[in-house]
Amino acid sequence: MKALTTDELLTQFLAGDVRACGRMISLIENEDATARELLHRLYPRTGKAYRIGVTGPPGAGKSTLVGKLAKECRKQNLTVGIVAVDPTSPFTGGAILGDRVRMTALFLDPGVFIRSMGSRGSLGGLALQTREVCDVLDAFGRDVILIETIGVGQVELDIARAAFTTVVVLVPESGDAIQAMKAGLMEIGDVFAINKSDREGADRMTLAVEAVLEMRSRTDEWNPKVVKTVATGGTGFAELLESIWQHRRFLSESRALERSRAEYVRHEVTELLDQRIAERFWKIDAVRKEFADWTERILRHEETPYEAAEQIWQAWLNQGGRIE
Amino acid sequence: MKALTTDELLTQFLAGDVRACGRMISLIENEDATARELLHRLYPRTGKAYRIGVTGPPGAGKSTLVGKLAKECRKQNLTVGIVAVDPTSPFTGGAILGDRVRMTALFLDPGVFIRSMGSRGSLGGLALQTREVCDVLDAFGRDVILIETIGVGQVELDIARAAFTTVVVLVPESGDAIQAMKAGLMEIGDVFAINKSDREGADRMTLAVEAVLEMRSRTDEWNPKVVKTVATGGTGFAELLESIWQHRRFLSESRALERSRAEYVRHEVTELLDQRIAERFWKIDAVRKEFADWTERILRHEETPYEAAEQIWQAWLNQGGRIE
Repeated sequence: MKALTTDELLTQFLAGDVRACGRMISLIENEDATARELLHRLYPRTGKAYRIGVTGPPGAGKSTLVGKLAKECRKQNLTVGIVAVDPTSPFTGGAILGDRVRMTALFLDPGVFIRSMGSRGSLGGLALQTREVCDVLDAFGRDVILIETIGVGQVELDIARAAFTTVVVLVPESGDAIQAMKAGLMEIGDVFAINKSDREGADRMTLAVEAVLEMRSRTDEWNPKVVKTVATGGTGFAELLESIWQHRRFLSESRALERSRAEYVRHEVTELLDQRIAERFWKIDAVRKEFADWTERILRHEETPYEAAEQIWQAWLNQGGRIE
Repeated sequence: MKALTTDELLTQFLAGDVRACGRMISLIENEDATARELLHRLYPRTGKAYRIGVTGPPGAGKSTLVGKLAKECRKQNLTVGIVAVDPTSPFTGGAILGDRVRMTALFLDPGVFIRSMGSRGSLGGLALQTREVCDVLDAFGRDVILIETIGVGQVELDIARAAFTTVVVLVPESGDAIQAMKAGLMEIGDVFAINKSDREGADRMTLAVEAVLEMRSRTDEWNPKVVKTVATGGTGFAELLESIWQHRRFLSESRALERSRAEYVRHEVTELLDQRIAERFWKIDAVRKEFADWTERILRHEETPYEAAEQIWQAWLNQGGRIE
């Protein structure tokens, strides 16, 4: 495979080449030196895609639901990008054979681009990279971006929350509503899908979720929707997508979309700078030397990490506190 | 409640006062100005507790297993600290009534100190705070610290990995082994507990886990143990604790414990400094002003976050790149 120049890659990308899009995302994942420049050049083309987060406990059927939602979008002639950040998703790495087969139809539709995000790299890195991948898919012209994350980890909840509409997927199983409450899922959902709702207890679950939502204190005026779906049967997905569009209309009428975009932008710039300053700080020779000396002293039980951090910090400040 | 001076709090803490220990942890969680000094003064007393991470998918019965392990430790006359970082744990916040009742016996034993960690605050913050809480419990004289985290999120896996021995809890349910593999759990476990092993499929599950472990490439020579437990019945916990002690002996004989302590210390000092530099950087007036200007321009679609970060950064460097 011939190496492409940045310009060539960008030209192919803008011509709608799927492989160029995939390559661009790989550059981001590998933290390639050219990634920042590419993202900068793509950025003017972003801002059109609608970003939907899909989250929930493992086993709720998030991936199948994401697949059905993608199909529903295609029926409305919308192109779709799927970003799976869920380590248990069949989209991500080691899918079970059955899942792969079921996903094949999606994989074959050029109107659906699927990408899974590795869990390698730094922690803060994953949230930033997911946003960057969404920017790439946005610039690629995808109308809708579906971001699948598992609704249990800290970083993962943050990723879901960065979408304009967050769909929380639950199943009618005893304890599921309680687990969802404990994991903070009831707070972040704009639309709730009670999936596998052909199972016993679906109505009870719907009522329980609605009851909890009534108690929920939110700053905005949106009333979260609860929709029953059966992912394997394909029931309820037109209604689910319609609820998402209702939320979208609500956001744009209440100007909340603007506010959330402002927050998103601030967050993105902050993270880019945090990453940069930490990176440069640890490249300073004097800091590295101090660090090595002090950690040795801690390991000899002569000092504490708190004193070490304080002293490394003060030594650096005394030398001018400069980054170069 | 009368406010205590730092010295008074420390005196009570060193006298073994449980409320003083709890208060100390609250100061850490609230990022109180005195927390760093207290941690520094406690640090010389740390290094004695054995830290055990317990992780696994939701519903695997981690909390009940942690409770049983705590009891087993008490039988060996060891005092215990429990830190629950799992948002679905009954130890954490909104426990179900039944769970609370079952936990009561533990709560009443002064040899067991239980603390749950909130999921508020920054992301990197949670991992650092968990380590600091472990330091407090260590200095408080607890012999064993059990850290319960959910085995799905990025931050959460990192927390489990920071322990000396990591116990991965799985249940004999179809797909569980595959989910565990996908979530990276098979890579991080030193001991595997097949919980709820009175259920059908426990032997099959044990064999599957052992087969996967044989393929696992590790740099060290430790052969992970697989132990069958029934948390509700109380079976298998003496054996589970014995496997943990086997791993502990292996670590100390192979000097791996020393290496892992060195890594732990380096990580801790790095995080303390990363936190400090970011905090100070965002306090610089010129940076805040530039930040406000540039984010406005991005929101007017005149600029990109990448260019903004670059320009804020360069402007700061041109003014000397200094932190004060």
